[in-house]
Amino acid sequence: MRAIDPGQDPGIRIEEALAEVLARACTGQAPPLLAAAYHHAVFPGGARIRPRLTLSVAGACGDDRPAVANAAAAAIELLHCASLVHDDMPCFDDADLRRGKASVHLAFGEPLALLAGDGLIILGFQTLAIAGGVSAERALQLTMILARATGMPGGIVAGQAWESEPEIDLVLYQQAKTGSLFAGAAMAGAAAAGQPHEQWAGLGYRLGEAFQVADDIRDVCATQEEIGKPIGKDDALGRPNAVKALGLKGAVRRLTSLIDETIEAVPDCPGRDALRRQIQRESARFLPASSALLPA
Amino acid sequence: MRAIDPGQDPGIRIEEALAEVLARACTGQAPPLLAAAYHHAVFPGGARIRPRLTLSVAGACGDDRPAVANAAAAAIELLHCASLVHDDMPCFDDADLRRGKASVHLAFGEPLALLAGDGLIILGFQTLAIAGGVSAERALQLTMILARATGMPGGIVAGQAWESEPEIDLVLYQQAKTGSLFAGAAMAGAAAAGQPHEQWAGLGYRLGEAFQVADDIRDVCATQEEIGKPIGKDDALGRPNAVKALGLKGAVRRLTSLIDETIEAVPDCPGRDALRRQIQRESARFLPASSALLPA
Repeated sequence: MRAIDPGQDPGIRIEEALAEVLARACTGQAPPLLAAAYHHAVFPGGARIRPRLTLSVAGACGDDRPAVANAAAAAIELLHCASLVHDDMPCFDDADLRRGKASVHLAFGEPLALLAGDGLIILGFQTLAIAGGVSAERALQLTMILARATGMPGGIVAGQAWESEPEIDLVLYQQAKTGSLFAGAAMAGAAAAGQPHEQWAGLGYRLGEAFQVADDIRDVCATQEEIGKPIGKDDALGRPNAVKALGLKGAVRRLTSLIDETIEAVPDCPGRDALRRQIQRESARFLPASSALLPA
Repeated sequence: MRAIDPGQDPGIRIEEALAEVLARACTGQAPPLLAAAYHHAVFPGGARIRPRLTLSVAGACGDDRPAVANAAAAAIELLHCASLVHDDMPCFDDADLRRGKASVHLAFGEPLALLAGDGLIILGFQTLAIAGGVSAERALQLTMILARATGMPGGIVAGQAWESEPEIDLVLYQQAKTGSLFAGAAMAGAAAAGQPHEQWAGLGYRLGEAFQVADDIRDVCATQEEIGKPIGKDDALGRPNAVKALGLKGAVRRLTSLIDETIEAVPDCPGRDALRRQIQRESARFLPASSALLPA
């Protein structure tokens, strides 16, 4: 394994960690098309907001085992990519476009999209187990955090399952579908650095809600080229959307106040002030360029 | 957690472990339909051959931490059930019937079937992480074993992915699709008991091949009522089948010789002789009653 420079750019750390993990999975006698589908699902990435959050929190907590933080960041992005692949399939959103190119099922067919999603989930947990060679205790804690963020009763699969219920609890739905992995990403950063993690959940949930509101605004205001996926999807699928509920001005105000709450929610830790500044800076990227002139 | 009696009947251990794991996942604010889909996918079970193999090997190796062996057995069955749910979906086998009742997508719709499969994979790995409270080292080793058995490059998803390749390597295909989880189940039994596990792979692969040949025979000879799923599927889907390749007599001879090889492959361990007798006994259940009079 390469020596890890903890001062390295987080974007580079994430891409290198993902590349290493995928190379290990797609080696030797792997069926070539599924290997290609894995790569298609993971590269190039979107904003990598969740693994960036993990590395930022790990950094604020000391990041004393950067290999564990890298594994946590990679695992979170793999689980996120898996959920996108399955969410795009015909029985869900039936989306042709993702991150500016064909969705996995469109490029490789439904069977390989289904398998790629399954395989990326498995790979996420495998990545954490490998990090157990550095710290068994942290690897197991990270597995618990990510399983809770993605599984039942309150993780991503639960969130998506609310869409099949005759009555939907909107708060539970959005917390599970979006908030849970943001909360998991924040908690994972602290756990990867060997620090208590429960107090990081609140920050993650608020950032997740901010991201959801920003996504709702993008769905209404951005161009397809900017966000790499179709716009107007919520309206077409009858999904809740903050702009519809609050108006455009109200949604932008809600976003601003959620970002403020996120910054307030940073727990006491060695890198608290730097992390607050970073959240301020990075959350500006939540909205696409075309919405920079939105009324605040 | 209940006190565990290591002398308990393995069938009861498996059902109780699965019930406990599912109860934990489907608690509190879980979306009810997905919770129901989890139960539909897991209960009632088929022959539970893989988790039985895990408990048998654990027993032969001393089974000094029965809670870890139970977790390993439950995790293996959850991963197996997940693969059945996804394999039955319209984009794969499009099967209406499984274990004598409606397949999950037929009973709950495709979105919930997709999510149930994803969620059961996550739950499998979570179950192992919880067992990390008993032994961190064994839990991590089990995670590695099960990730290898189900993921890329040689686990179940790789096996199913070969069906999408223009050219299929039959040996790799069957080893990955069926053999890998049998090998994983055998290795997991040894690892759960804190013993070296690599030497158990051979037994698992042979038993997996025996099971595959028996499945091929069932597909040709059994009644739908006996096996709880449609017969003649291989022929309809153009899949390889041992009866087609070797004739019925030849397939039954191959099955007998694979079971002999499995028994020969039991590594040196405290419970070697008992395990050999058990494999002999249990493998008789591979074939349905209607094939008991087959020529040997």
